[in-house]
Amino acid sequence: MNRFLDLADFSREEVLDLLALAKRLQEKPEPQALSGRTLGLLFFNPSLRTLSSCQVGMTRLGGNSFVITPNHGSWQLETAQGAVMDGAAAEHVREAIPVLASYADALGIRAFADGHDLAADLAETRFSAMAAVCDKPLINLESAVNHPCQALADWKTMDDLQVAAGGKFVLSWVYHPRALPLAVPSATVHMAAMRGMNVTVLRPEGFALPTAIMDKARSAAAAAGGSVSETNDRDEALEGAQVVYAKEWGTTAPYGDTETDAKLRAQLRDWQIRPDWFERTANDCRLMHCLPVRRNVAVADEVLDGPRSVVRQEAFNRLAVQMAVFHRMLARQ
Amino acid sequence: MNRFLDLADFSREEVLDLLALAKRLQEKPEPQALSGRTLGLLFFNPSLRTLSSCQVGMTRLGGNSFVITPNHGSWQLETAQGAVMDGAAAEHVREAIPVLASYADALGIRAFADGHDLAADLAETRFSAMAAVCDKPLINLESAVNHPCQALADWKTMDDLQVAAGGKFVLSWVYHPRALPLAVPSATVHMAAMRGMNVTVLRPEGFALPTAIMDKARSAAAAAGGSVSETNDRDEALEGAQVVYAKEWGTTAPYGDTETDAKLRAQLRDWQIRPDWFERTANDCRLMHCLPVRRNVAVADEVLDGPRSVVRQEAFNRLAVQMAVFHRMLARQ
Amino acid sequence: MNRFLDLADFSREEVLDLLALAKRLQEKPEPQALSGRTLGLLFFNPSLRTLSSCQVGMTRLGGNSFVITPNHGSWQLETAQGAVMDGAAAEHVREAIPVLASYADALGIRAFADGHDLAADLAETRFSAMAAVCDKPLINLESAVNHPCQALADWKTMDDLQVAAGGKFVLSWVYHPRALPLAVPSATVHMAAMRGMNVTVLRPEGFALPTAIMDKARSAAAAAGGSVSETNDRDEALEGAQVVYAKEWGTTAPYGDTETDAKLRAQLRDWQIRPDWFERTANDCRLMHCLPVRRNVAVADEVLDGPRSVVRQEAFNRLAVQMAVFHRMLARQ
Repeated sequence: MNRFLDLADFSREEVLDLLALAKRLQEKPEPQALSGRTLGLLFFNPSLRTLSSCQVGMTRLGGNSFVITPNHGSWQLETAQGAVMDGAAAEHVREAIPVLASYADALGIRAFADGHDLAADLAETRFSAMAAVCDKPLINLESAVNHPCQALADWKTMDDLQVAAGGKFVLSWVYHPRALPLAVPSATVHMAAMRGMNVTVLRPEGFALPTAIMDKARSAAAAAGGSVSETNDRDEALEGAQVVYAKEWGTTAPYGDTETDAKLRAQLRDWQIRPDWFERTANDCRLMHCLPVRRNVAVADEVLDGPRSVVRQEAFNRLAVQMAVFHRMLARQ
Repeated sequence: MNRFLDLADFSREEVLDLLALAKRLQEKPEPQALSGRTLGLLFFNPSLRTLSSCQVGMTRLGGNSFVITPNHGSWQLETAQGAVMDGAAAEHVREAIPVLASYADALGIRAFADGHDLAADLAETRFSAMAAVCDKPLINLESAVNHPCQALADWKTMDDLQVAAGGKFVLSWVYHPRALPLAVPSATVHMAAMRGMNVTVLRPEGFALPTAIMDKARSAAAAAGGSVSETNDRDEALEGAQVVYAKEWGTTAPYGDTETDAKLRAQLRDWQIRPDWFERTANDCRLMHCLPVRRNVAVADEVLDGPRSVVRQEAFNRLAVQMAVFHRMLARQ
Repeated sequence: MNRFLDLADFSREEVLDLLALAKRLQEKPEPQALSGRTLGLLFFNPSLRTLSSCQVGMTRLGGNSFVITPNHGSWQLETAQGAVMDGAAAEHVREAIPVLASYADALGIRAFADGHDLAADLAETRFSAMAAVCDKPLINLESAVNHPCQALADWKTMDDLQVAAGGKFVLSWVYHPRALPLAVPSATVHMAAMRGMNVTVLRPEGFALPTAIMDKARSAAAAAGGSVSETNDRDEALEGAQVVYAKEWGTTAPYGDTETDAKLRAQLRDWQIRPDWFERTANDCRLMHCLPVRRNVAVADEVLDGPRSVVRQEAFNRLAVQMAVFHRMLARQ
């Protein structure tokens, strides 16, 4: 495996294979598998889980890592092709990426959406500019509209919990004081569809996921025998749900319009997941969230601290699935 | 050993045992003792010695570490129970700590005092909120009113220098442009008392250590055969001292009152340790300080660069004692 | 080798020897050579290549490293002797350096010029204050007027490309929105002279390199059989060049005068290396730059993306030459 950028680049069998490897590494550690191997980590945006689990994952397999964080110890990097660089950025990724790649055996990059131009973000313009000049294995640690490591960890979490493939999976918009990117909702709706779930996207008016994201999920669902629908009707959505996956994101009507976003958002503070959201769900319905989560804003304490919440398990699984990705990419055969 | 949060949690024998282990590891390295073990380091506040000595300590024992710094590459973390998180903090420690703990074999946390509510800081409210959700071994790398790694290194430094247990130990307030927390003075007065020193806290009016801190030190002194007193009389305090331990802290009259602090502090610039402070002390009286120290503000160059100063040795010993703590916590039996 | 601070501290033979070691380590890895060895890295200024290549270099040799960055996770450090530290800096290097050195087997330090006092910067006042209190092997990772790791990597790059020793080497000033330090131009003119090149420094009026820098390069040239000259005539300089080494720096007329610098600089936007700069050079003339480079400001895309550019190779070679330095310093004999 040379690239881990999007679950959609892999067949269902390949994903199941990665998940089996993650499980095997949990049960039977391989402390020498990546001996002498180095993962370069480039974080354009803050991180807690991803940063620490990538570093630990490499050391548990006998390898190591280094971290570059533009604006925190390193300078800003330009990604735009042809830019006249007389602004804040001191270096272009056309130099930085090949250089970092030359020091490492693989690179992992986190680069969030610009959040202004939907077409550019859907095309992963920033991330692709980096991928194009990276001649080493590359891992997407969250891009404009994807977060495959999170998606894989969430898939594993549902497997661990024996959530049935045909069950109802509700991706629900929840309140946050600011507009967040589409990476996790986009990755999540696709992952759930690819796993064969019957997916409902529950979101207020103005927060529909872009058509391209929904279409991609729908074709994954078609292949896996599931379905994808969307609604703003909370009762309808939650009826019989086996999983409620809470996530915050910004308005798409239009995308990146901060004024509209603020106006809509101000009316939506009741989109906080509280115990009564589970009145119509399956009895054993789970609450998932990729973290970080704002307590008593996006999800109430009672839910996060209650038995439905599996948010910590999802985070624990980040380590296992990333170790599987590193192993598949870098282990000597 | 599952927790290293406060020297007071250990018997004198247990402390002596840790110090013996520190010495043994200095003399006889064990480069494989913690092979495959990972220490997660969470720094809410800046660090130089603690950060580097923890990382080096782990690698010298064959293990490794990772570092998360809220506000520098990661986001702010909330510690208050029940908080409605619509402010700056993006994640609660109730998620972050179990997640980081799951990636690591032990966690080390630095989280300074809030500095507003004395009762809360004395109760270690912030640190305790994290300790309560950490199911792995945990090390206090400086909390509101404690710094046990520093205390243990200082104890070792006095042992290395053969400072007699019954000697006079003066903890002296010194000037600093800003109010600093009570962690080091609190840990120091207790450590010196527990080591059996006759401790005098020398401080200007308005800077008395809280009663709870003094009482804790007094009961340690009672058990160890030493004593604890306080005074604002410099001549009396320094008379016959074997150790002068310089430290900066904020006013406690009342605690956290920045206006009072600034007013009092402005008159106290002569609380700078200069050579003439040693006119009445024992001939071989030592100058200790936990570092960082502001030269020619808290302590004069002549003292820091002279033969009395053992501030570097104290810092060197941080590595040895922390290696002992890591070893005791994580070495396979 | 106990210090790697300036190529001028070494004989030509010693440099060639280091380059041979760099090549050997590229061809025949020694993954255990520095087992158990730790490099402490202290970065007063941002870094991408230096930080990552130092960390990777140590791990590839079986060692490890730690990083301290004042202002990003650690506090500001004072370097001035006798300073009354009531300002921003919380700690003096007279404490910090011996402490970090005690935890490490060697230190690497990056500390740029203050940029105000030419004599002080030429004397490496800040770096020397740290070197004076460091009792472990020490590496200059860029100081006021030097960058020996970059110089060594550039030398290796010319060797790899079989650039003839007697060829014409043009160090050309190029435009940048801000005044940058003299470290790289100073190191480069000396390195090229020491390698036996016929060096021309091409720079606009007001940007002549200081006499001390030119004199140092001239004596290296005299010993190696090359030459050093300077001009503001672009055509004359570029005629027959085998290497154009582009670099940005601030005015020296007078040094550190930001107003003069801004006024001069505003007229010099055409000092951007474009394809037509190579009309009079040798056919196979190379473009070198230490990176980071501002595209379409200092050097045009067409040049950086064309076959003349060897800027990435220079950066790749940072790893190899630094591994040679670490190995020479720290490998057990």
